[in-house]
Amino acid sequence: MKQLILLRDDECERRMQQIFECMRNAGVDTMVLTDSANLYYTIGRVVCGWILLDSRSATARYFVKRPLYLEGAEIVKKPEEIASKIDVGSLGNFALELETSSYSAVERLKRVFATEHPLNASAVMREARSRKTDVEIEMIRESGRKQERAYSHIPKLYREGMTDLELQIEIERISRLEGCLGQFRISGDTMEIYMGNVLAGENADTPTPYDFAMGGAGINPSLPVGADGTTIREGDAVMIDMNGNYTGYMTDMTRVFSVGRLEELAVKAHQCSIDICHQFKLMARPGVAAKELYEMAVSIADEAGLAHLFMGHRQKAGFVGHGVGIEINESPVIAPRSRDILAQGNVIALEPKFVIPRVGAVGIENTYLITADGAEQLTNSPEEIIDLA
Amino acid sequence: MKQLILLRDDECERRMQQIFECMRNAGVDTMVLTDSANLYYTIGRVVCGWILLDSRSATARYFVKRPLYLEGAEIVKKPEEIASKIDVGSLGNFALELETSSYSAVERLKRVFATEHPLNASAVMREARSRKTDVEIEMIRESGRKQERAYSHIPKLYREGMTDLELQIEIERISRLEGCLGQFRISGDTMEIYMGNVLAGENADTPTPYDFAMGGAGINPSLPVGADGTTIREGDAVMIDMNGNYTGYMTDMTRVFSVGRLEELAVKAHQCSIDICHQFKLMARPGVAAKELYEMAVSIADEAGLAHLFMGHRQKAGFVGHGVGIEINESPVIAPRSRDILAQGNVIALEPKFVIPRVGAVGIENTYLITADGAEQLTNSPEEIIDLA
Repeated sequence: MKQLILLRDDECERRMQQIFECMRNAGVDTMVLTDSANLYYTIGRVVCGWILLDSRSATARYFVKRPLYLEGAEIVKKPEEIASKIDVGSLGNFALELETSSYSAVERLKRVFATEHPLNASAVMREARSRKTDVEIEMIRESGRKQERAYSHIPKLYREGMTDLELQIEIERISRLEGCLGQFRISGDTMEIYMGNVLAGENADTPTPYDFAMGGAGINPSLPVGADGTTIREGDAVMIDMNGNYTGYMTDMTRVFSVGRLEELAVKAHQCSIDICHQFKLMARPGVAAKELYEMAVSIADEAGLAHLFMGHRQKAGFVGHGVGIEINESPVIAPRSRDILAQGNVIALEPKFVIPRVGAVGIENTYLITADGAEQLTNSPEEIIDLA
Repeated sequence: MKQLILLRDDECERRMQQIFECMRNAGVDTMVLTDSANLYYTIGRVVCGWILLDSRSATARYFVKRPLYLEGAEIVKKPEEIASKIDVGSLGNFALELETSSYSAVERLKRVFATEHPLNASAVMREARSRKTDVEIEMIRESGRKQERAYSHIPKLYREGMTDLELQIEIERISRLEGCLGQFRISGDTMEIYMGNVLAGENADTPTPYDFAMGGAGINPSLPVGADGTTIREGDAVMIDMNGNYTGYMTDMTRVFSVGRLEELAVKAHQCSIDICHQFKLMARPGVAAKELYEMAVSIADEAGLAHLFMGHRQKAGFVGHGVGIEINESPVIAPRSRDILAQGNVIALEPKFVIPRVGAVGIENTYLITADGAEQLTNSPEEIIDLA
């Protein structure tokens, strides 16, 4: 038999205390977790099951349907079996994952736990997971190092006459060989993508349905984002924003390549993105409001006369950065109406990008750790535009 | 401006009539769709938006947030803006996607549409989508042909000393080059996978948290399924069950390879799987109960003395087949307590598989179309075990 919990005891304890603290702050006595990302955070592995947490006694119980043969798990075939194993009457203020569980799943658990109006465990976990532990930070660092290695292969993967999709497929392969898990974990149903985005030339100006920073038509209307299969041409910007999930924890890094030299407006906008990232590094620290950082980014783009191209041209993204960890869209969010305040242990991807009509997308994205003193950059591939020709 | 609806008029009409019929059968007057798979079915593309369908007037309205610039869409920034554009009081019996939308999302739409107890649009759409149109069937056929082409490359991708993961990465690449979209669409939150499953040797007997037919440890506890990175050895069975999504519609096909000859028990079990598939082709037709087909499969495995290895060894799957289309887990389900009755236009993946301790997984999976006369096989790669050595 293998152990259910794959975290070291002290790490498990650390995460549990963080969860219990966030529960108490939200007035939650007990809650049930079943979302894969939340389970991976809590026990270091994904199972099909339900974890019952009690912030009053600082205890947890682990009800698992699959896999079988895990030591420390109470086996149940369905959630209804949990009711007879616990004292349902003593749950107090009870929370369920209202943002990640389907309506049907929550209704079912409401009956199991005899609760009519559950509080929101998704918000509790978003808060707990936003301040990374040292162990999590080390896993993110490792993803960053491996993503840098994968990106370092890109210039030698390019061949003249390639389509954006052919280049993407070779980057997918090299990423996988460097250890990329493939899976691109996103919270919520409104975003879908496969292994990241390679955007070449004017395809960057095609709006998508998704809440990503950049667009692209994709190769099929069932997944309308990213590379569209057109040949990369001289003068195109090629933006690479590929999956950085090498450890179960993601980094998010974007770099830009070109075929020949790009027109001046694109070069200027790319430098403006680098400037915004540098200013972020100077400003970001615990206590700073996320929306101040958004305003800083917009104002630098504006001063450069590039506001109309910032974060999209025909269609614009409503944010310039986002937390990253187990999922690509964690807290805090760097957006105009964000109420998030930066805290030590936040890991934030900043992606000030521009779409230059006919040329393509330019700008960089880096992942930063918020330390007591400021921001440490975790993705360190060269930031300048690299000519593939 | 591009058109919102990408389906030909007659195809759009056909699907709409099918949806309206299923709504009426379920007593649903109006419903709102927002799930990507349901939108792709209804309008031939994914958007971020909400489609309001009225089965009484046989009409639809299309409210779209993103992408911008679609002709035929009413632009809304958020669902609350829909309320002022319609007569909320005349919605009648109203349904929402209770199985795919999060609890929070449904609660929000309940307020928008002033409905306390919505009916279940997920069940309506599952029924509508289970009977494929000729256009859908042609897309599935095309996926089948392309998947066959991708699989035909497998023997030349193998090199002695390869790990299961290295082989999988080469199959991923060749599948992508043959046109695979990558995305593996699954309904519900309880299953996650990246591009399919390559299971070599005893890793096949490792239980997973997911509701797939087969298991495997995976390379990271954040995605514990499939290839685990161990070297493929002489005498191993290598089961390949890779993503067949080449058109937005999937086929599902599994084939088995070996390094050298497999032990007799494995060879016998593989033949038993082929026998079950042949029997399925003889029995499956409109009107047949799905559970009868399940019982047939179990009884053939039992007669061969292989029941203890059927559909898993240490942990068993609870089904032997499933509908397939836009998503990998559609209706009908071939399972012991299934109430599904086969209908013309169903597309069903049958996967009678065995796990042979120490050898690995054997058996085939094919996708079948249920026609008026019987079952037509849509995945036609050679079914015998192919020796890679």
